[in-house]
Amino acid sequence: MDALTKKEFYFDDIEIGHSESLGSYTLSAENIVEFAEKWDPMPFHVNQDNCEASIHGGLIACGVHLLGIRMILTHNMEALEAVVASFGYDDVRFKAPARPGDTLSLFAEWTEMRESNSRPDCGIAKLFYRLGNQDGETVLSHFDNLLIRKRP
Amino acid sequence: MDALTKKEFYFDDIEIGHSESLGSYTLSAENIVEFAEKWDPMPFHVNQDNCEASIHGGLIACGVHLLGIRMILTHNMEALEAVVASFGYDDVRFKAPARPGDTLSLFAEWTEMRESNSRPDCGIAKLFYRLGNQDGETVLSHFDNLLIRKRP
Repeated sequence: MDALTKKEFYFDDIEIGHSESLGSYTLSAENIVEFAEKWDPMPFHVNQDNCEASIHGGLIACGVHLLGIRMILTHNMEALEAVVASFGYDDVRFKAPARPGDTLSLFAEWTEMRESNSRPDCGIAKLFYRLGNQDGETVLSHFDNLLIRKRP
Repeated sequence: MDALTKKEFYFDDIEIGHSESLGSYTLSAENIVEFAEKWDPMPFHVNQDNCEASIHGGLIACGVHLLGIRMILTHNMEALEAVVASFGYDDVRFKAPARPGDTLSLFAEWTEMRESNSRPDCGIAKLFYRLGNQDGETVLSHFDNLLIRKRP
């Protein structure tokens, strides 16, 4: 490989146990409310003033918003260009609330890989994601099952 | 109960095996691209003109968008007012692509219920969701684990 050429990432380059940090995203009350008004207008996701007394003790981001933040941070991952599709997610867990001002950071680790029976040009790999806040608490975690291109 | 009073829904009213249809949502190329530009700008989610040749055979909605559509249709469910929180989702599966013009309909079924150890005023119930298209194909399915208020 030409030393001046950026190395492309393929299924062949996955190392089980390899983990990486993929950047962070800071929530505001405005973007929590804007997202939830469209997709999940529960009082504790949209009503800044009147949700203090709810079980959640104030405004919290909705779960689909947290999955969106996980997704957009994944675009910082070099493996992304080789991803063909996601079959789906396992064990999605909303572990702690995410509130205005929280900075959420994404951590990813390859946990499994295997051949694809139907697509010899691809492999199947499992990634574990952990989205944590500035205090080190996990806010969201899940596995993703990905179809990933092999080196041609 | 006063016959003129709308019956409120609580954990106590859940019947395992009860299923219901929760309305539908029609996708456009514009809303597929608008969502994906913010949260998952993969070529096959944002590029109407140049993604015909991709594995997906054209523009398809991103997975987080489908989860958002599932969530907003859930707001048609009478049980929603009793939902305190979701612990998370199991077995999220993206089973078929969703394309511009598709009309997606949500179906939900209660599959499990049990007492909460930590919250005697609530119970825990599992809902199965199926989001299907106009041809009867399942586009997305998953389980949701919900904390639900009991009748006071």
